[in-house]
Amino acid sequence: MFQSFKDIADPSKGKPRVAQLRKQLKTRKLAAFLVPRADEYQNEYVPPDAERLFWLTGFTGSAGMAIVAGKSAALFVDGRYTLQAPEQVDTSVFDILQTPQNTPSDWIKKHLKKGDMLGYDPKLHTIKAVEQLQKSAGDVGVCLTAQHENLVDSIWKDRPAAPRAAISLHPLEYSGEPASKKISSIQRLLRKSKSSAAVLTLPESIAWLLNIRGGDVPHTPLPLCFAILPAKGKPELFIAPRKLSPSVRKALAKDVTLREPEALSASLASLGKAGAKVQLDPERASQWFADQLKQAGAEFVLQSDPCIALKSKKNKVEIAGTRTAHKRDGIAMCRFLAWLDANALTGKLDEIKSAKKLETLRKQTGELKEISFETISGAGANGAIVHYRVSESSNAPLKSGSLYLVDSGAQYLDGTTDITRTVPVGEPTKDMRRHFTLVLKGHIAISAARFPKGTRGVDLDPLARMALWNAGLDFDHGTGHGVGSYLSVHEGPQSISKRGMVALKPGMILSNEPGYYREGAYGIRIENLELVTPLRKVKGGTRPMMGFETLTLAPIDHRLIDVLLLTRDELKWLNAYHARVLKVIGSELKTKDKAWLEQATRPLEAK
Amino acid sequence: MFQSFKDIADPSKGKPRVAQLRKQLKTRKLAAFLVPRADEYQNEYVPPDAERLFWLTGFTGSAGMAIVAGKSAALFVDGRYTLQAPEQVDTSVFDILQTPQNTPSDWIKKHLKKGDMLGYDPKLHTIKAVEQLQKSAGDVGVCLTAQHENLVDSIWKDRPAAPRAAISLHPLEYSGEPASKKISSIQRLLRKSKSSAAVLTLPESIAWLLNIRGGDVPHTPLPLCFAILPAKGKPELFIAPRKLSPSVRKALAKDVTLREPEALSASLASLGKAGAKVQLDPERASQWFADQLKQAGAEFVLQSDPCIALKSKKNKVEIAGTRTAHKRDGIAMCRFLAWLDANALTGKLDEIKSAKKLETLRKQTGELKEISFETISGAGANGAIVHYRVSESSNAPLKSGSLYLVDSGAQYLDGTTDITRTVPVGEPTKDMRRHFTLVLKGHIAISAARFPKGTRGVDLDPLARMALWNAGLDFDHGTGHGVGSYLSVHEGPQSISKRGMVALKPGMILSNEPGYYREGAYGIRIENLELVTPLRKVKGGTRPMMGFETLTLAPIDHRLIDVLLLTRDELKWLNAYHARVLKVIGSELKTKDKAWLEQATRPLEAK
Repeated sequence: MFQSFKDIADPSKGKPRVAQLRKQLKTRKLAAFLVPRADEYQNEYVPPDAERLFWLTGFTGSAGMAIVAGKSAALFVDGRYTLQAPEQVDTSVFDILQTPQNTPSDWIKKHLKKGDMLGYDPKLHTIKAVEQLQKSAGDVGVCLTAQHENLVDSIWKDRPAAPRAAISLHPLEYSGEPASKKISSIQRLLRKSKSSAAVLTLPESIAWLLNIRGGDVPHTPLPLCFAILPAKGKPELFIAPRKLSPSVRKALAKDVTLREPEALSASLASLGKAGAKVQLDPERASQWFADQLKQAGAEFVLQSDPCIALKSKKNKVEIAGTRTAHKRDGIAMCRFLAWLDANALTGKLDEIKSAKKLETLRKQTGELKEISFETISGAGANGAIVHYRVSESSNAPLKSGSLYLVDSGAQYLDGTTDITRTVPVGEPTKDMRRHFTLVLKGHIAISAARFPKGTRGVDLDPLARMALWNAGLDFDHGTGHGVGSYLSVHEGPQSISKRGMVALKPGMILSNEPGYYREGAYGIRIENLELVTPLRKVKGGTRPMMGFETLTLAPIDHRLIDVLLLTRDELKWLNAYHARVLKVIGSELKTKDKAWLEQATRPLEAK
Repeated sequence: MFQSFKDIADPSKGKPRVAQLRKQLKTRKLAAFLVPRADEYQNEYVPPDAERLFWLTGFTGSAGMAIVAGKSAALFVDGRYTLQAPEQVDTSVFDILQTPQNTPSDWIKKHLKKGDMLGYDPKLHTIKAVEQLQKSAGDVGVCLTAQHENLVDSIWKDRPAAPRAAISLHPLEYSGEPASKKISSIQRLLRKSKSSAAVLTLPESIAWLLNIRGGDVPHTPLPLCFAILPAKGKPELFIAPRKLSPSVRKALAKDVTLREPEALSASLASLGKAGAKVQLDPERASQWFADQLKQAGAEFVLQSDPCIALKSKKNKVEIAGTRTAHKRDGIAMCRFLAWLDANALTGKLDEIKSAKKLETLRKQTGELKEISFETISGAGANGAIVHYRVSESSNAPLKSGSLYLVDSGAQYLDGTTDITRTVPVGEPTKDMRRHFTLVLKGHIAISAARFPKGTRGVDLDPLARMALWNAGLDFDHGTGHGVGSYLSVHEGPQSISKRGMVALKPGMILSNEPGYYREGAYGIRIENLELVTPLRKVKGGTRPMMGFETLTLAPIDHRLIDVLLLTRDELKWLNAYHARVLKVIGSELKTKDKAWLEQATRPLEAK
């Protein structure tokens, strides 16, 4: 299993660990210290040796920050985690505060005083975050002070070793473009903007650029490393040598100069000596890089990581790959849904069994490298918790008269998948069907949208909500995130959300996942991945338009659809989608599963 | 007439005036000088003595900037004016460059060299604009240098005097809230943010705050003035004394300390001496204010003008007023549309005659204070020019088989209106009807939208476009702008557009004006004003929702609607709207006009 269902949080550890941390505060004459969830790569998934926030507090969420002062301590989490955090964390030690209503800045103003020293680890905070902290600390006369040994590290006795997963080459049949060509493209951009070099601090950017993959963090094939890409000449790659087999080392050495991670400081310093103009991403690179370059006298240009925009537009080979990956994943999903249907009412299924079965079926494809994130397997009321993670203690049975929501994905060499289906266990209520159909209308509105060049995710997001808005409902998450190619399942810069300010471009992959959540009762989400695609001109049309090709192939549950609520066009979309699912997947299934799929994809008729 | 149709542009003046300006450049040792369209209040409409850009170049557009160097000169205009500018401006003197594809920054980099001095008038550029100019000038070693006498003013011999229209009090029956209460509200905000004062540089903010109106610029009842609002105590109002009658002076003196405009510098300086923390709006206040305060040693906080957000949410009295104003304006519009219908095919109508007739009918209400902007009266192909201004030379007849677009508005004491209608002259083509119906679908989508708290204009804008997008079409302007209460017809911060990042709040008024423009053939736009309004809960709804109350009352032309393209709900909206127009306006019309309205608002049936 690529996932565990153990209850890993243990609130009782918080108290003694915070006490130890406070001793450190005293020794270092600090009033407080910041412990963010982030690692030095600003990864979404962090390796075990970087799980400082979890170690200190017990909190397992994917975002958050603690501040520990001499007598007070707080844990800041966003709306996704306000229920989860108090269950995992000793609330007699930490005040749990929800962002953005509460901010670390406000806390600093309230709990620290003029002249206090506030410590932070410059490797764990982005340049922009430090700028903001500096401002709010400055407002009250608190001095933000970099700590070159992290206070948590100095008390974390059994801290795991840094990961050292082997690097593999991501071959041309999947990447579609040699590293040398990608390097040249970025170098052209650097020369155009008159930069001498870019410092690459995101493992996913480096993985894309050099066509390599690793295994240093869960669920995403990232090689933890840094790189310096000069406007001319060979990039330097800073990576632990033990991650490289002789053959990988040889292949990589064609395109890059390999260096030990310890050499990074010196290389940054020599950029400074050369008076280089260095690009650094203020929202993604840590303050440590800015400090090093500044010290060395380099001029630096704050600009987005130049790999991000190119990586987001998948090339033909990557697009062909993702289609194959989605067909493979669709077969596993259809087998899973058929199994679920056959067993849901036996009373024997629960969230963990179902998640395990799905992972097993994916493994049976013979191609599964990892799951792309921890499966959200939510029965009944658990389905209403948007970022639910099932554990042995929360594990709920699938009960008749309830809904079951499963949001999961896979990492294959040829593509990353992410799909959510919601199915009824037994007979659904009228409300369940109504809510599901409203969510489906939003899903179809996105999938069937035609939109001109320049359209951003923010311009599409409302289409997913209109049907819900008309019913006085809404959902509190974005409609879709970008997805990588055998890389991060959450990939920028594109998104369909209120913050999606980047224009969509052909080749981008996005999720389309509107939902509806009735707290304490059930959750509904319908998610397919969509590929941005140029569309043929319609008669009379004057502008080139784009739209989506749906990549995900698995039926959307008929039993939850109230056909009366669908327009003719929506029904047409649904029937065409199901016909395609049957056509592509049907012939790959054995008799029983095929019969199930035929039934699940039969055309619905207007009433 | 509140509008003139004279051809005011005269390209031949550009050459000699630029030659004079170049002499000034030499005298002052400047390499170039910036001439923006803006005045020192950043007004949309500027008084005649501030029409420097027009005087120098002949360009009459509402936005733009010229740069004049020793041998080259450029005029920067946006997409609205790329056709108009070359007709008004001597292109042998000025290169006409379209923003944002071309920027003054690029021009500076190309035409100026290291060590060059670039002059600008600090009263005419916002703090933010100067910051950007400084950056791009700095990049190439050009020195941006403030000129305390504007170069244009020093050569403009027959420059008109500054306007001195009398100030009137805007009584409580229209404003709904005494100035003293508004002042206290803003002062509470200032104290909350620990500011000692706000400098108010927008006449519309001051007009709102003090319940006064003026007449210093066309079409908007603005009193040109500045104010300093301290967190405690009486505001200072800097205004030419000759604008104040004894009674107005007496009334105003209750709430403010009246000062001559020349006293402004000294008051800013004394803020500095007192070590005040002063709020200044970086996007709306000129650099001059920042310079003065900096010199005086004041600390300043860059923040939006605090009046803007409060002004945008109309109170109950203002809402009642705008309803009355729209009923009055609707009567004039219905009389106009009836007249147009009766005369369109006579062959005697043209754009100017029609615009004059409409103004006359508005004047006959007995309440017209001004038109709220120059009427866009576009027949045939002129209708496709989004910001068309009819002049004697462009004036086109209304021809059978064409469309006529008229976008106009009025200033009444109780409210500001803005309405666009498109009508067929004779028999419309199938394409005209199809395009009109697509635009109507977008208009209805906005008008009928239900949306939750926090929804911004950017989230609604796409609803106005979806029907067009599906047909491969779009329009290149925002869907709607904010509207003031007997103030600016273009009022921030709210808008329905790609840049509309402000959450809509009950009481805001916005235009809803999607369009379609077929270059060289016809233009279509349907515009009503909409009031943001809380909606009653629908059954099963869990969230409080908002929607729009349509303020504008005038028929939408049936002859241009293809009922087959409308959904049942859209048709229902149309018929309900027309029933309301007839109910509210019908009884106010004389027999002939009433008969026309009955015909124009009869319910359409689904086919």
